[in-house]
Amino acid sequence: MSANSERYVIGVDYGTLSGRAVVVRVSDGEEVGGAVHEYAHRVIEEALPGSGVRLGPDWALQSPADWIDVLRHTVPKALAAAQVPAEQVVGIGTDFTACTILPVTADGHPLCERFPERPHAWPKLWKHHAAQPHADRINALAAERGEPWLPRYGGKISSEWQFAKGLQLLEEDPELYGLADRWIEAADWIIWQLAGVETRNVCTAGYKGIFQDGAYPSEEFLAALNPGFAGFAGKLGTDLAPLGGLAGRLTARAAEWTGLPEGIAVAVGNVDAHVTAAAADAVRPGQMVAIMGTSTCHVMCSDRLAEVPGMCGVVQDGIVPGLWGYEAGQSAVGDIFAWFVDNCVPASYAERAAEAGLGLHEYLTSLAAGQKVGQHGLVALDWHGGNRSVLVDHTLSGVVVGQTLATRPEDVYRALIEATAYGARTIVETFEAAGVPVEEFVVAGGLLKNRFLMQIYADVLRRPLSVIGSDQGPALGSAIHAAVAAGAYPDITAAAAAMGKRDAAVYAPDKERADAYDRLYAEYRRLHDHFADGDLLHRLRAIRNEASA
Amino acid sequence: MSANSERYVIGVDYGTLSGRAVVVRVSDGEEVGGAVHEYAHRVIEEALPGSGVRLGPDWALQSPADWIDVLRHTVPKALAAAQVPAEQVVGIGTDFTACTILPVTADGHPLCERFPERPHAWPKLWKHHAAQPHADRINALAAERGEPWLPRYGGKISSEWQFAKGLQLLEEDPELYGLADRWIEAADWIIWQLAGVETRNVCTAGYKGIFQDGAYPSEEFLAALNPGFAGFAGKLGTDLAPLGGLAGRLTARAAEWTGLPEGIAVAVGNVDAHVTAAAADAVRPGQMVAIMGTSTCHVMCSDRLAEVPGMCGVVQDGIVPGLWGYEAGQSAVGDIFAWFVDNCVPASYAERAAEAGLGLHEYLTSLAAGQKVGQHGLVALDWHGGNRSVLVDHTLSGVVVGQTLATRPEDVYRALIEATAYGARTIVETFEAAGVPVEEFVVAGGLLKNRFLMQIYADVLRRPLSVIGSDQGPALGSAIHAAVAAGAYPDITAAAAAMGKRDAAVYAPDKERADAYDRLYAEYRRLHDHFADGDLLHRLRAIRNEASA
Repeated sequence: MSANSERYVIGVDYGTLSGRAVVVRVSDGEEVGGAVHEYAHRVIEEALPGSGVRLGPDWALQSPADWIDVLRHTVPKALAAAQVPAEQVVGIGTDFTACTILPVTADGHPLCERFPERPHAWPKLWKHHAAQPHADRINALAAERGEPWLPRYGGKISSEWQFAKGLQLLEEDPELYGLADRWIEAADWIIWQLAGVETRNVCTAGYKGIFQDGAYPSEEFLAALNPGFAGFAGKLGTDLAPLGGLAGRLTARAAEWTGLPEGIAVAVGNVDAHVTAAAADAVRPGQMVAIMGTSTCHVMCSDRLAEVPGMCGVVQDGIVPGLWGYEAGQSAVGDIFAWFVDNCVPASYAERAAEAGLGLHEYLTSLAAGQKVGQHGLVALDWHGGNRSVLVDHTLSGVVVGQTLATRPEDVYRALIEATAYGARTIVETFEAAGVPVEEFVVAGGLLKNRFLMQIYADVLRRPLSVIGSDQGPALGSAIHAAVAAGAYPDITAAAAAMGKRDAAVYAPDKERADAYDRLYAEYRRLHDHFADGDLLHRLRAIRNEASA
Repeated sequence: MSANSERYVIGVDYGTLSGRAVVVRVSDGEEVGGAVHEYAHRVIEEALPGSGVRLGPDWALQSPADWIDVLRHTVPKALAAAQVPAEQVVGIGTDFTACTILPVTADGHPLCERFPERPHAWPKLWKHHAAQPHADRINALAAERGEPWLPRYGGKISSEWQFAKGLQLLEEDPELYGLADRWIEAADWIIWQLAGVETRNVCTAGYKGIFQDGAYPSEEFLAALNPGFAGFAGKLGTDLAPLGGLAGRLTARAAEWTGLPEGIAVAVGNVDAHVTAAAADAVRPGQMVAIMGTSTCHVMCSDRLAEVPGMCGVVQDGIVPGLWGYEAGQSAVGDIFAWFVDNCVPASYAERAAEAGLGLHEYLTSLAAGQKVGQHGLVALDWHGGNRSVLVDHTLSGVVVGQTLATRPEDVYRALIEATAYGARTIVETFEAAGVPVEEFVVAGGLLKNRFLMQIYADVLRRPLSVIGSDQGPALGSAIHAAVAAGAYPDITAAAAAMGKRDAAVYAPDKERADAYDRLYAEYRRLHDHFADGDLLHRLRAIRNEASA
């Protein structure tokens, strides 16, 4: 076999609106070519394709055919762009949004192929939020019964996850529930299509599927939710595959789709956020990776098990085998800035930005960057999309305090950026207070390009920020997993060290600004704690929902 | 003498940026002509005219010459527009912003004529806020000594008022203080120019000058502030003239300025807000007149004396002789909406408004008007300009609670309108809780034109709104006072009944909406009480001020 410098792996990242493939050199992680393909159906939110059957509020579906199209289109293009002969590719890995889940037959056929006019036959995208009542019941019953797995999820499981969506399927379309031999994450389904065998990865089973200490919730618990739900775990899988493991070999059919050699290694499925840790070479205990985009996801390995209040989950081997993998999150980050720019910045600013040849984000940043810490007189709560960690309450909402007639758009823009930084600091401090040290804060994701924002995070967190050295973190991470599955490295940690890219301490905190932010952060925490019980915010939302009904 | 239907009076209203005169028929208050003149110097905030001497932060001055120009330009123009011969005019009345105050010699010459290069020689406009430290000392000492007049001002006097501005003059330019024989409200100074005799009206002496129960604060109190301040009251006046009284007769010089007959009645000076009560025929006990514009001023007569927390002041005979006159206020109302439209509404809205041929206020109103009460999920505190009543704290700031990624500009716009309505309800309820019933809510001022806003106020207040029938409330009110001074009516109440204009119950509350608003108002009050101590808001402001220093 040729040297790693002449071998390549493919990483495929399945996002919310598109999929992308990158071709990566095994020896050093060099990304030599890539391609993107947008899903034809994007997110299905209003009506089903073909039949036009209307969907209810908060529904969000996808089409499995779009996922196969990504393989067909991106892999050949990426190879061509890289000018790498297919014979030099030794493995393929993928990552997916999660929990994105679908009902399939025992041989892996999506039910939406046979029942395209039935909403529940389609894959439910991660942001399908119509199972909230089901999640509420699961949480209430688990709390009442003191289920031991509940603290592993910060005290609440999400409506986005496998059991809530499964219970919704059962109760709203019991016939389809019966026909669904398997209830499978898209992350695992796509591997089934590539390797021809069903596998279940440890990551989604743990973070999205309530698999803890070797088992799913008991049949007794499930039956108490609904007698028909007692056997639900049978549609999942208990023989879990480790991350970086070999799921199987590329089938002839998949080789035809992709142009890759039949029989190369197919890595076990993974999740976009979690796989990014490998891409950033940040899989050692205490390296918290924040993937900052429309929302922020925090993943971190640790050698300690602790119950961190408000975390999304802690899963054994959930990021790399042998360590506990923690996940936390901020519901809306870049989304808040985008909302502000779209809804709260006047025409006069748009004109001046255009005159200066800047986008509105850049223009606001240029104005806000000239301010001293605290000069705007504002503090905000970054709950415009609810609060994932550490309050686990998506019905919270945003608060802005301190506006005067002299407040300008750049003031609020900066205050919102700062609010998300305070939110990140709250998460870090909560981990540390629970006995899980955070030793390095590593940033990945689209917000990396905003240097002003990064400096604020460094100042607010009072610690240096490391940054990932790739724009394609998840795809690179998947490629790293493919290299491990292909046997090029003994484990993810070794592969990440060789192929991952992290620049340490790119942003250093400024002591004076950090001290000034300490005072503002104290105000944020007071405001946070005052509104955290949701007393006022829940009543406001209830009034809103009644008025909108 | 001819009948009232052939007799006319002139009302002159001195505002912040311009003065206006109206010609009014004595018999029925018909406004037959008017004219406006903008002050050449407008508000002097940066540097003195001529010398260019720079002013400090929070300074705001005016030029007395501008006020005389108003008489020269508007009265002849108004007469011409009305086609009323000057001989048919029997009196002139004026109203002024307050406390707008100036140092003059014993014969009434403004010191700024002789010392134009000295900032303290000029009239300090009502919104000159550089005397806050002096007001703070006055309030602290008065509270410490338990001065009996302090509760008559809701517990705090304002930095805008006579004593704070006078103490600033003494301490920052003691020589000029010594040369100022008289320290006189512009409301009284202009009457001096018209009638040739110095008078002091009971209204400004009471509301702006701490004249209570027949006396100013004691020499002992004033000396404790600063020994040089002991004789300050000697620069004011204790022989107060009643509202509607005859200050004197028009001098030859003033007749020449105005084209009016020498010797006609000149009414005692008055304040723009207070004189509006007469224009609205709302001078009976329990008729609260809200003059709603950039800010809102509430004036109301009552036969009862009570200590209403957070009112601006209660003055015997302060609106009409024989009754207690109450004043309260909201620091920013229209100012908040203007700030929002200028700073917080995106270009896409400006484009759609322009396409629809609407201003942004009208466009936002058209969108917000379609909502049900509470549908936006927001509640705000209307403290963007501080809080005058009932908290008397101009260092408070605004709060907006409940924003999500789905919140649109019209949602916040409506929430801000509602917040000011909740602020008004808080004032009404505070009066009633203190034993001063509010029996009718009468609206005057520029915001009257927003019917949507008026309906919200009716729904939030749970009571019908009466509205003034004139666009020129203060000028009409001054004309009414002129008619009384000229002897055409026995008193202000009778003159207001004949000449004032009020349409009763123009906006009726809708029970369903009022019930819905009760729930939101309860949330507003909770938020109000939580932030009222200023704990967080004061710290934020302190941080802001330090960072800006």
